[in-house]
Amino acid sequence: MKVGDTHYRSIWYDTAKDAVQIIDQRWLPHDFRITALETLDDFATAIRDMWVRGAPLIGATAAYGIAREMRRDRSDAHLQTACDTLNATRPTAINLGWALGRCQTALKDVAEADRAKVALQLAQDICDEDVEMNRQIGLNGLQIIRDIAARKDGAPVNILTHCNAGWIATVDWGTATSPMYHAANANLPIHVWIDETRPRNQGALTAWELGAHGISHAYITDNAGGHLMQHGHVDLVITGTDRTTRAGDVCNKIGTYLKALAAHDNNVPFYVALPSPTIDWTVSDGLADIPIEARPASEVTHIQGTARNGQISEVRVTPEGTRGENPAFDVTPARLITGLVTERGITSATPEGLTALFPDLSQNGAL
Amino acid sequence: MKVGDTHYRSIWYDTAKDAVQIIDQRWLPHDFRITALETLDDFATAIRDMWVRGAPLIGATAAYGIAREMRRDRSDAHLQTACDTLNATRPTAINLGWALGRCQTALKDVAEADRAKVALQLAQDICDEDVEMNRQIGLNGLQIIRDIAARKDGAPVNILTHCNAGWIATVDWGTATSPMYHAANANLPIHVWIDETRPRNQGALTAWELGAHGISHAYITDNAGGHLMQHGHVDLVITGTDRTTRAGDVCNKIGTYLKALAAHDNNVPFYVALPSPTIDWTVSDGLADIPIEARPASEVTHIQGTARNGQISEVRVTPEGTRGENPAFDVTPARLITGLVTERGITSATPEGLTALFPDLSQNGAL
Repeated sequence: MKVGDTHYRSIWYDTAKDAVQIIDQRWLPHDFRITALETLDDFATAIRDMWVRGAPLIGATAAYGIAREMRRDRSDAHLQTACDTLNATRPTAINLGWALGRCQTALKDVAEADRAKVALQLAQDICDEDVEMNRQIGLNGLQIIRDIAARKDGAPVNILTHCNAGWIATVDWGTATSPMYHAANANLPIHVWIDETRPRNQGALTAWELGAHGISHAYITDNAGGHLMQHGHVDLVITGTDRTTRAGDVCNKIGTYLKALAAHDNNVPFYVALPSPTIDWTVSDGLADIPIEARPASEVTHIQGTARNGQISEVRVTPEGTRGENPAFDVTPARLITGLVTERGITSATPEGLTALFPDLSQNGAL
Repeated sequence: MKVGDTHYRSIWYDTAKDAVQIIDQRWLPHDFRITALETLDDFATAIRDMWVRGAPLIGATAAYGIAREMRRDRSDAHLQTACDTLNATRPTAINLGWALGRCQTALKDVAEADRAKVALQLAQDICDEDVEMNRQIGLNGLQIIRDIAARKDGAPVNILTHCNAGWIATVDWGTATSPMYHAANANLPIHVWIDETRPRNQGALTAWELGAHGISHAYITDNAGGHLMQHGHVDLVITGTDRTTRAGDVCNKIGTYLKALAAHDNNVPFYVALPSPTIDWTVSDGLADIPIEARPASEVTHIQGTARNGQISEVRVTPEGTRGENPAFDVTPARLITGLVTERGITSATPEGLTALFPDLSQNGAL
């Protein structure tokens, strides 16, 4: 999508510079910086410390990491090492393992001399496919917005979203935001309630994205959404997901479950937008079987922002020495989800629904 | 309770200085400062801008405000003006109107010459009664903790609380925290999950309180509680309330409703601790009839804390110019509440339960 007048992806291979470039999300929304990733350690650090984040984007980043490593050492042993290193960076999103598995499968029968070239092409393909899947998700989700708009007599459709499942969490378009961008392109009036999404305040990334595209929005605390739903100010919730079970449970940014409960209690439709690589066909019970990342407590006790002097600064909000705990994701049971918006269409959050939409993929993890 | 080695109330009349003193909560948990309130404008500003906060404490502060004003101008007209000014500072907590109504009733038949003295005594009485009610709430709530502890074989009872319904939200003891302090005094092992409570991060006040009393606790984002309940890490939720309807609906800090939904979904008992002045006997339907304060958006877009250099500083977390919305309270329907812990005992969140416990008071607002 556009930043100013320039179209960007969140990650790309710059042919002229012969370098993998990322929008460095450590500094957003306060500063727009581009960083080149070169070594395996660069790629691992970028994923682990969230210079890039979002399930689809960390998959794409891992694929580029393998492509770069195959220039340095094309051996089977190093392929394994590189995959293991990258796979260990973050545990929850399935896209990381999916992209790395795809790299290993694609490269194992390729002659070493060709591996760098094939791996780079694969990373590009993964990116292009992500963009196209997200575009399709947007078109499918647009229909939900259209249907609600038809009942609202010109008033904006109020959409609540949690975290940033935006274009910078993917390669482009985003998952949860793609229907919003398509609605804006179609001149459908929408207003987006953006959950702050503590810790790390990733709602500010969504505010940055939507602001750049002129989409009406308001930033609210994670506490506010239930109240807004009770009073009829939310027509629809759309979130992303980091891992979806074959039964339709959704593991997404911590706090998603609370919004799903509130939506359920107030008869507000709750949709989750996902490209199919986010489905873990080997897992049925999300609560029991998806590993939940525990991130540093400092993300809870300290907050980054722009100080009065314009500097990007960090403040401690707790008393000195307060212990924090920071589970980064939670699982929303399928029973609370109105539907899953995928690149192939919208389906119920059920094993039957997902299998019917993806008969080819669902055999991967047949239990 | 104690700060260091000194016992404090959150507000008091200092005879030697002839001044009303408050613990100035603008600076907590980062700095402990005491401020004197003198003029009507001081008292109104202290309540509106949250130098003092918490339903019981703002009631007590308003009573002291009337006492000070009656020294300056004892007329009926000024009594009315002072009450109107203070009552307009914050709309949601009923204790403010309750305390001011009590002042008006008590003073209306008192000779003007005696009004200052009577009003000061009334403010002191309101404070003393608050302390005693909260002490009793703690003893009643302690029994809930004891019962759970009896099933836990020595393991700590895990209690989740939202916002700060602590001793600095009251005159002393707190409402939700009073059972915790009593449990600590009784050497019952407890661990408290403290919701951050954005905006204003009032969980940091609770962390400051519990830390000072050596009670085990961890600071978590408002998003985390549902996940902790799903995994069995919460035995009990206790919150305060700013206004309770005669039907048992509870209006409390924004986000309370989401925790009540999660507790309900996971069979975790959800209790609300309240002194009887928090009950609005004139209101039955909390969602329809309790005014919800809309506070400044800057509380959402900006966050105060301690910077690296030790200064209390503020950072902006959103892109410049982002619009925020800041509803400060929400309503938890009675159906989600396990019980109400009052100074007279524990009752169901029902009209019958409340009326049976407070037959004398419930006639005040008979519909």
